[in-house]
Amino acid sequence: MNKSNPDLFKLENMTWPEVENAIKKAECALIPIGSQEQHGPYIAESCDSRRAEKFAALLGDKLDPLALITPTVSYGISPHHMNFPGTITLSPQTLVSLLGDIVGSLHDHGLDRFVLINGHGGNDDTLGVAVDTIRTELPVRLLAFKYTSLAAEAIEAEVDSDFYGHACEREVSELMYMAPEIIRENRIEPGEEKKLLSFKQHPVNLGVDFDEYTENGALGDARQASREKGEKIVETALAEAEEIVRDFLQLELPDRN
Amino acid sequence: MNKSNPDLFKLENMTWPEVENAIKKAECALIPIGSQEQHGPYIAESCDSRRAEKFAALLGDKLDPLALITPTVSYGISPHHMNFPGTITLSPQTLVSLLGDIVGSLHDHGLDRFVLINGHGGNDDTLGVAVDTIRTELPVRLLAFKYTSLAAEAIEAEVDSDFYGHACEREVSELMYMAPEIIRENRIEPGEEKKLLSFKQHPVNLGVDFDEYTENGALGDARQASREKGEKIVETALAEAEEIVRDFLQLELPDRN
Amino acid sequence: MNKSNPDLFKLENMTWPEVENAIKKAECALIPIGSQEQHGPYIAESCDSRRAEKFAALLGDKLDPLALITPTVSYGISPHHMNFPGTITLSPQTLVSLLGDIVGSLHDHGLDRFVLINGHGGNDDTLGVAVDTIRTELPVRLLAFKYTSLAAEAIEAEVDSDFYGHACEREVSELMYMAPEIIRENRIEPGEEKKLLSFKQHPVNLGVDFDEYTENGALGDARQASREKGEKIVETALAEAEEIVRDFLQLELPDRN
Amino acid sequence: MNKSNPDLFKLENMTWPEVENAIKKAECALIPIGSQEQHGPYIAESCDSRRAEKFAALLGDKLDPLALITPTVSYGISPHHMNFPGTITLSPQTLVSLLGDIVGSLHDHGLDRFVLINGHGGNDDTLGVAVDTIRTELPVRLLAFKYTSLAAEAIEAEVDSDFYGHACEREVSELMYMAPEIIRENRIEPGEEKKLLSFKQHPVNLGVDFDEYTENGALGDARQASREKGEKIVETALAEAEEIVRDFLQLELPDRN
Amino acid sequence: MNKSNPDLFKLENMTWPEVENAIKKAECALIPIGSQEQHGPYIAESCDSRRAEKFAALLGDKLDPLALITPTVSYGISPHHMNFPGTITLSPQTLVSLLGDIVGSLHDHGLDRFVLINGHGGNDDTLGVAVDTIRTELPVRLLAFKYTSLAAEAIEAEVDSDFYGHACEREVSELMYMAPEIIRENRIEPGEEKKLLSFKQHPVNLGVDFDEYTENGALGDARQASREKGEKIVETALAEAEEIVRDFLQLELPDRN
Amino acid sequence: MNKSNPDLFKLENMTWPEVENAIKKAECALIPIGSQEQHGPYIAESCDSRRAEKFAALLGDKLDPLALITPTVSYGISPHHMNFPGTITLSPQTLVSLLGDIVGSLHDHGLDRFVLINGHGGNDDTLGVAVDTIRTELPVRLLAFKYTSLAAEAIEAEVDSDFYGHACEREVSELMYMAPEIIRENRIEPGEEKKLLSFKQHPVNLGVDFDEYTENGALGDARQASREKGEKIVETALAEAEEIVRDFLQLELPDRN
Repeated sequence: MNKSNPDLFKLENMTWPEVENAIKKAECALIPIGSQEQHGPYIAESCDSRRAEKFAALLGDKLDPLALITPTVSYGISPHHMNFPGTITLSPQTLVSLLGDIVGSLHDHGLDRFVLINGHGGNDDTLGVAVDTIRTELPVRLLAFKYTSLAAEAIEAEVDSDFYGHACEREVSELMYMAPEIIRENRIEPGEEKKLLSFKQHPVNLGVDFDEYTENGALGDARQASREKGEKIVETALAEAEEIVRDFLQLELPDRN
Repeated sequence: MNKSNPDLFKLENMTWPEVENAIKKAECALIPIGSQEQHGPYIAESCDSRRAEKFAALLGDKLDPLALITPTVSYGISPHHMNFPGTITLSPQTLVSLLGDIVGSLHDHGLDRFVLINGHGGNDDTLGVAVDTIRTELPVRLLAFKYTSLAAEAIEAEVDSDFYGHACEREVSELMYMAPEIIRENRIEPGEEKKLLSFKQHPVNLGVDFDEYTENGALGDARQASREKGEKIVETALAEAEEIVRDFLQLELPDRN
Repeated sequence: MNKSNPDLFKLENMTWPEVENAIKKAECALIPIGSQEQHGPYIAESCDSRRAEKFAALLGDKLDPLALITPTVSYGISPHHMNFPGTITLSPQTLVSLLGDIVGSLHDHGLDRFVLINGHGGNDDTLGVAVDTIRTELPVRLLAFKYTSLAAEAIEAEVDSDFYGHACEREVSELMYMAPEIIRENRIEPGEEKKLLSFKQHPVNLGVDFDEYTENGALGDARQASREKGEKIVETALAEAEEIVRDFLQLELPDRN
Repeated sequence: MNKSNPDLFKLENMTWPEVENAIKKAECALIPIGSQEQHGPYIAESCDSRRAEKFAALLGDKLDPLALITPTVSYGISPHHMNFPGTITLSPQTLVSLLGDIVGSLHDHGLDRFVLINGHGGNDDTLGVAVDTIRTELPVRLLAFKYTSLAAEAIEAEVDSDFYGHACEREVSELMYMAPEIIRENRIEPGEEKKLLSFKQHPVNLGVDFDEYTENGALGDARQASREKGEKIVETALAEAEEIVRDFLQLELPDRN
Repeated sequence: MNKSNPDLFKLENMTWPEVENAIKKAECALIPIGSQEQHGPYIAESCDSRRAEKFAALLGDKLDPLALITPTVSYGISPHHMNFPGTITLSPQTLVSLLGDIVGSLHDHGLDRFVLINGHGGNDDTLGVAVDTIRTELPVRLLAFKYTSLAAEAIEAEVDSDFYGHACEREVSELMYMAPEIIRENRIEPGEEKKLLSFKQHPVNLGVDFDEYTENGALGDARQASREKGEKIVETALAEAEEIVRDFLQLELPDRN
Repeated sequence: MNKSNPDLFKLENMTWPEVENAIKKAECALIPIGSQEQHGPYIAESCDSRRAEKFAALLGDKLDPLALITPTVSYGISPHHMNFPGTITLSPQTLVSLLGDIVGSLHDHGLDRFVLINGHGGNDDTLGVAVDTIRTELPVRLLAFKYTSLAAEAIEAEVDSDFYGHACEREVSELMYMAPEIIRENRIEPGEEKKLLSFKQHPVNLGVDFDEYTENGALGDARQASREKGEKIVETALAEAEEIVRDFLQLELPDRN
């Protein structure tokens, strides 16, 4: 985080003449997408939005001046967490429309490439559908990824818990590095997992509710989390993401209509 | 802002057991709604979102523990500003769906009353449609207002410019009180208004682009803005809003299905 | 009403060669929009449609040959009157689609400007959304107004009741001037208002049902209505509307695609 | 037309207490549906709406007090006439939604049976889809017919032209009986038919434009029309319709939800 | 069925270079559309899909190399059969979208004419709506027919039952000729018709469930069916269809956008 | 394939009394979903549909009598193959609606569990969205998987090509085992891959067209395919699928509304 003002390339913090200027050099927009959903008794519900937002800021810093950052999409696809208070879920159609409107508006201002930076696994399918849908409607290039999936090996190396993936050792570690203020450190406890979890070993989409997996909404043992683990995971993902996006910027563009 | 932790009643900052607890006393959710759109050469484009978010926090503080606050809806209806770089506009249908999903989710968690706190005039009609649409689909009570419209007299008394309503003396004053960090004070300049403005005196909906009104996207003379004016406007609106919401909480509820 | 055949510029009364001819001179279409909803025990439920239709005819007469008039949209947005028998309400999405189809068809025939003449306050938000939606999809100019809002001062001067706005002194006066046949004069009685009405002083959108305001569906004291009051209100609105539309016809058009 | 006030059972002409009363005896609503489309150089474009409206009034009179009549749906499905000035076409989806809203509203007021009285062949498929769609969503009975299809034999017997079906001898005859004011008698001329017409003998849906069939938008020889022919056709259809609706009222109702 | 490989012109059986080649000569695509719905106790539920598919293959053979055949649409509009196990019904909107996507994709590959070959009467209205909808969105020619409606006279001559139209003498005869494998010959029995059937003599759309017509889901007396009757009906329809499609291929095309 | 009549549990081959009987024992429906899209110069375009259909039949055989099989969904999500002739793509929304209608209909007949058997990777995201969407609307259990993803280790062990995943050694091997009739053996050739392929190593969603990856639409070297490899892959996936589905049938059901 070596930038004097890391927020300058965020559209929400810029005036229109500043955007007009920045857009001359920018070659893509980064769109951070999170969720408002339960993350166990020790993480605030904005966990995924915060992580996506911070990750996008770090990535934007590395890519400067090639990328602008949109306001974070703070709501995601969370039907499976609705049995825990406070979770808010969009219908997939709403999120696809929302992203289509954002991309379409910025395309009008001259941008042709868009990177959907996802902080919540539950959004993955909908973002895939958004990519298929939007690129059929507009002559743009789209790239979408869940940023942690870019650090699979680092995660395997760092995480000690048997299970992870939500309100877990990995997520708390990331937050310790990027957004410690939303952890309730004194409330951290192991996930109260349930038998159904055996299902997780199959790569299938099983439409279950998260309280069928875990009583307290958490997985694994977040007590093993550390800022160091988080730093390794995030920085690995960041290096990968930077490379991918720079490659992405080389791809040929479809003709503007 | 007399609260030790003014953000505690924001859903994004709470864990699910904290929400579970708070929702026992809460009788409504406040949903702040802004926009990402040009506000002249001297206000960052998140102007309306920031103001709605801050206003909702101040109002939540007064209503505590009766209100919870959702993550801010950072995008609004801004087709009329699309000729200025950086503006992002949703289609009205997208915003109605988004609000319907938010209300529906929180209704599942036990809330029955929802207050749409609007910071952007361009959203007004869509929020009206959202009220009509959502209350037909769900047995909930909805209240929507543009918060500055609650302080019409104070605004008339405080504002000296001939014109106001966007990137203006009134808006800069409000920001000086609530979010001075997004003003570029040294760039403040008068609105470069155009003849078309004569139309504004009729209470009609004329689908024009904002650059038909003003060259630099601003109205009136924001150099006359002051934190004091902002405080009077905001605090007046706040007192009105508190009274309205408290009355609203007395209204009978429709039967849950 | 000084025209020999006031209905000639209504599209429903014209053959296609007559339209072909008229469209050479016409520069806009007027689209009257009303409702089918309760108007107390003394006005037929087509009140708003009749008033919008008559007003459009009077305005068309003044603008002749610059305006054509479409068939009246007889259904509007009336969820708040659904507790009274006979009320029919459209979903806002239906009305937006309907208006989009009408505008799109006439745009195909060469018209580029459209005036939505609204006779029902409950339609206002949806018409605003229609303006935002349609002008994003088609290169047209749109103007929308509730015609009585053009005569605010005259109404203030003429109306004696404490409350008005629906099935009231103002509306009966207008009908006495424009469509006396749908008044049941011998049934006129004061509105049976309820306490909730105190809310009405705030400029907020409170999604309530009309029977929470008034027992008989009426407001104020319609016994004070007169044809003279109606004439003043309607003729004032008419003069304003004519001026506004003539100005509107001067606005530059977007390029046809 | 033996009723003193034939319009009394029209919802648009009734106050809410009158509807409340009438609905106690009424067992169905009649919904007249027409079009705004070219009908050759000698019939005004509201031809189908007028005929549907008049037919519904005549039918309502016979069924009194069993039927209420809704405001006429003045717009229909007319893409095939769009090459003639003045035609306005809805998308099928819009019309289905509009009818769904009308039926849903009246179902809320206690009606369970609905008769779609169609005056325009081009609406037939969409009304079929409306029946399939609405009865899946609501526990109602629906009946739809193009009223002239109930008088096929009478039409065969009365009409002398080789072709008919639009702006034709049959339609002008009907209008002479039901709505002579929208005929331009001195403009009546034969249809300027084209070779493509051979297609008409197959019962297929060929998505063609009407100007591929006929130069002036008319078919056959409307000069052979007469009020007497119209009376026979209309009265035959009316007798059939009355019988069908009375049978329809005997059909068992699905359970209200 | 004189072709060595009658399936060669089916898109599902071709590689992309084979399609690339065939599309140079092909001037239309045939789209067979059926249903998955009850057909009495003696016909499998794919009856309509099988018949449409076979008919399209026979027609494609006659038209070779002018027509390509798409995969059969195996689901149709069957709300009226939902009271019999196994029936699956699409909403009309789903089928319209599905057909729009198929037509749009093949239009991208260079085809401009599309023939919807319908095997199920319940699809007729939705296919009509599909024609109106798709040809408004894309510059294509569309033709739709229920193939048995092309053989009305042959059917009248061949069929002896009083009633037919579903799981009947006519349908079993057709299957004996085209797809005998889905008949349970030893289960054939007369339709167990009910009184409601009197309604069938009116050309009206009465939204009834099929079990209101017949206890066992069948009509008439299928025991009178024969392969010979089926051959006459199918071959008559085939000859008509070939002629119609060849004429259709002569119709002028709209300009590609 | 040890069953005398492997097609008996396919809904399309059953009469309604047979379904009525079978549904008493059946505890789920299998829904095979494929695509119509290019698969290189040596596989017919129905490749994915055939494989999904055959796999579902084999699985149904193992699960008999617990599973019924619906007609195959022959169209999928293939925008990335549209630059190759013959490909047909649905919009994701269409496929979600289609699956929702199928599930909804069978739920009406008493089934509560549904297994989406996917033969095409491009469908994965849309099926995930379908699961999230449908289970929010209906009280059903849904399970979705791309069947080859259940045999990841077997595939790694069997496949020798560097790349695979489409029109490849793996897919041809599977077809040799399940549907050899759609392979053009004499046309098999290596994929003509392009540099862009380096992207494939990242787990990201990059909205590219398949002709950016490969000139002839194929990947890897399908000449190394064999029936034995196919058998191992398919039988491994089958054993996994059977186990997963049997576990799935143990999951608790949501209450029927």
